Amino acid sequence: MTRAAETGGRGPLEREPLAYLTASLRGVGQVDLQPQLLTGAFILAGLWAAGWKVGLFATLGTLISTAAAYAFGVDRGSVALGLQGYSGCLTGIALIGSLGNHPATYVLTVVGCVLCTVLTAALTTLLKPYGLTALTAPFCIVSGVMVLGAPSFDRIWHGAPAPVAEPTSGDTGITFSDLWHAFFGNVSQVFLVDSWYVGLIMLVGLACAGVRVVLAAALGSVAGIVSAWALGAPTAQISSGIYGYNAVLVGIALGAVLLANTPWNAGYALFGAALSTGLTAAITSFFKPFDGHTFTWPFILTTWGLLAAVPQLPRLRAATA
Amino acid sequence: MTRAAETGGRGPLEREPLAYLTASLRGVGQVDLQPQLLTGAFILAGLWAAGWKVGLFATLGTLISTAAAYAFGVDRGSVALGLQGYSGCLTGIALIGSLGNHPATYVLTVVGCVLCTVLTAALTTLLKPYGLTALTAPFCIVSGVMVLGAPSFDRIWHGAPAPVAEPTSGDTGITFSDLWHAFFGNVSQVFLVDSWYVGLIMLVGLACAGVRVVLAAALGSVAGIVSAWALGAPTAQISSGIYGYNAVLVGIALGAVLLANTPWNAGYALFGAALSTGLTAAITSFFKPFDGHTFTWPFILTTWGLLAAVPQLPRLRAATA
Amino acid sequence: MTRAAETGGRGPLEREPLAYLTASLRGVGQVDLQPQLLTGAFILAGLWAAGWKVGLFATLGTLISTAAAYAFGVDRGSVALGLQGYSGCLTGIALIGSLGNHPATYVLTVVGCVLCTVLTAALTTLLKPYGLTALTAPFCIVSGVMVLGAPSFDRIWHGAPAPVAEPTSGDTGITFSDLWHAFFGNVSQVFLVDSWYVGLIMLVGLACAGVRVVLAAALGSVAGIVSAWALGAPTAQISSGIYGYNAVLVGIALGAVLLANTPWNAGYALFGAALSTGLTAAITSFFKPFDGHTFTWPFILTTWGLLAAVPQLPRLRAATA
Repeated sequence: MTRAAETGGRGPLEREPLAYLTASLRGVGQVDLQPQLLTGAFILAGLWAAGWKVGLFATLGTLISTAAAYAFGVDRGSVALGLQGYSGCLTGIALIGSLGNHPATYVLTVVGCVLCTVLTAALTTLLKPYGLTALTAPFCIVSGVMVLGAPSFDRIWHGAPAPVAEPTSGDTGITFSDLWHAFFGNVSQVFLVDSWYVGLIMLVGLACAGVRVVLAAALGSVAGIVSAWALGAPTAQISSGIYGYNAVLVGIALGAVLLANTPWNAGYALFGAALSTGLTAAITSFFKPFDGHTFTWPFILTTWGLLAAVPQLPRLRAATA
Repeated sequence: MTRAAETGGRGPLEREPLAYLTASLRGVGQVDLQPQLLTGAFILAGLWAAGWKVGLFATLGTLISTAAAYAFGVDRGSVALGLQGYSGCLTGIALIGSLGNHPATYVLTVVGCVLCTVLTAALTTLLKPYGLTALTAPFCIVSGVMVLGAPSFDRIWHGAPAPVAEPTSGDTGITFSDLWHAFFGNVSQVFLVDSWYVGLIMLVGLACAGVRVVLAAALGSVAGIVSAWALGAPTAQISSGIYGYNAVLVGIALGAVLLANTPWNAGYALFGAALSTGLTAAITSFFKPFDGHTFTWPFILTTWGLLAAVPQLPRLRAATA
Repeated sequence: MTRAAETGGRGPLEREPLAYLTASLRGVGQVDLQPQLLTGAFILAGLWAAGWKVGLFATLGTLISTAAAYAFGVDRGSVALGLQGYSGCLTGIALIGSLGNHPATYVLTVVGCVLCTVLTAALTTLLKPYGLTALTAPFCIVSGVMVLGAPSFDRIWHGAPAPVAEPTSGDTGITFSDLWHAFFGNVSQVFLVDSWYVGLIMLVGLACAGVRVVLAAALGSVAGIVSAWALGAPTAQISSGIYGYNAVLVGIALGAVLLANTPWNAGYALFGAALSTGLTAAITSFFKPFDGHTFTWPFILTTWGLLAAVPQLPRLRAATA
């Protein structure tokens, strides 16, 4: 997030409405914890490449959450870094995927994305004593609650969509084609998209954020694949990225953003990426009885848990903010 | 809660055992976050009007929790305001409704209401760093745990009672009769009672607490009805108050007690009331697999979430305590 | 834990590798919150008497978690007291019981026990503001997640083991034989072992830790039996210790370790022991839909709740650390 520090003077990017648009574009990149405009632009391009609905709702979601942050008077520094937009981006994608393209979905996206901004604020208050940040938890809570409640309501529920691919059992043999599909699919599934070329576009965006970031994402993806394979997860789900997108996020968060650049920390980040892969199965089993969604909970819980441990473990060291 | 400040001198209401009885009566009103004696009296009258069992267990519950607070030596100011009795009031009602009028239910009510006092203390400790209060969470936890565990025990379980009305699907057309039943039913369902005239009596009690309180309750009720209808909830459940009692509580808590009296805050309270309505469906779906009860969780979670956000949102302002 | 204070000078027990072995042995005793070497030795003997698999995995688990604490550089005082080993001890036992004696189980035990050390650190950070400690929560989280996720993975899941005995309904008549089996079974079930003589060996170990400790454990066990019988739990489950092991732990924790030695505190500890018995049924019902395990959650939640209340309840007093 150091790049943002460079924009200290009030250049053209800080003037309305350009400031609003750049804040939103950074918000798209902040899903992967990166504030760079170019990263956001590549990821947004990837999302539109995944389909106009995904692209539209990701764009709307980010714009609405960011606008709500302006309206509520949230700290401008946080808004400018895109930290108020990323949960809305994912919420928009989750709602169009779960509820379908109906007028009610647009209304719910507005409500949900405003709520993301409120919950980001609430989690900031609640997590501050521990030095933790909200990560994508506002998205998981808002989208989880909405998708859980939706079937009770006639005017917003139009029948279940094609089921989201989630861990079940199946064949465990693996081919080279499975492997590279999984490698890129892990990156795109962060945005609930199953597409190797969308993942490739996003990786290019991450590369614009620096070598360490793209390396952490790639190693996270590999760690996710290796651990899912070693545990004996079904190949179909590995190759569609279901088992590895949390590992990518953990890799970026612990490997390139929140911890200092040391060998022990790097090992810890890989350990976390592997953990999040196992946790994906556990959380999916937990959610199954009430049709909940796994979303990025494995990433969030792994990262919170491992970060909270750092102050007690002198071998590890948080990044100096 | 400013009215209590007036009782600074040790008048007759502060002498035992009158102090104990007035603290308990205020406790009944504190379910709706109001410490006034008259409000408590009207609500208690409404509860007895709902049936002798409801009235008796509400009375017993409040008296036991308040007595336990005396015994444990809880801060007298908090006891005198009724803040130690309201969870017991609701717990008594929930237990008689779930377990039926058996000797074991009386014993469990004693245990449960003592536990409410302990949990109120525990939550006070846990929530203090965030400036939040326990609200009705001790009731939800104690009653939820007891009702969840009860079927495992032969001596306290006498078969399931008539099922509590909870959100399912159904017809969504609405008539004027549905609307006014819902308006008052929302108020009485705070106490797990489905009766328009009980709700009316309680609203009169809330009017004794001031115009702002009764207005917030009424607008909360309306917000609950409108949002439930807009979402497409079944009319039968809207009119019995199932979808709106949390909105009434959110309306009072955010609209009249915990936030300052500003237009932005009022809008935020209405937003919260609508949110709690949607959340009611989600929490009910979450609880369904293990037969849990929704109780006032939607109110609690909405209020905690929205209040925790306030320090980060300069447009909003907490009430000066 | 005062005994540890005696080892201030660097005697032979502080030199490697003896320090590592004594820290691990204390870790076995710390499952029952006792740091004495002799207590740990008796309990470990009891675990090997329960079968070589239980003994081996308890030993491995404790050794691995303690070694991980050394590797991460955890505070040596905490390691020496055995506070880094007890969650690993229980995790080893839980994993061999749930996953069976397969090569994968050994690998998962290593991963799980390292994770126990990390989570102990994380919970230390998260609970510090409230003056609470992790208790056996790292074990419950790690083992719970692993057992929940395991069936999704072909290489680690070899079919469900013989079902763990958990609360269901059944006959409620009780004989003297049931009673004494329950009394000792409650002590051994802390370690997931159903055996009266293992419980007896462990009680002897607790007696080595002092009269107050063994008395608290025994009274906790009695409180568990009495309350389970009074509630009407099935005799078969009372006598196998399913309903009372949490009461034993609450008895020790609140009755002999964490609260001062006063009559009010003693009553509070017994109240907690009885509560944990009821909570066992509720948590088991909650976990049933997704095949979760109750483990020692009732002990943890009861102890956290009751301890968090103490600062607000002047009648009670925490032990001076």
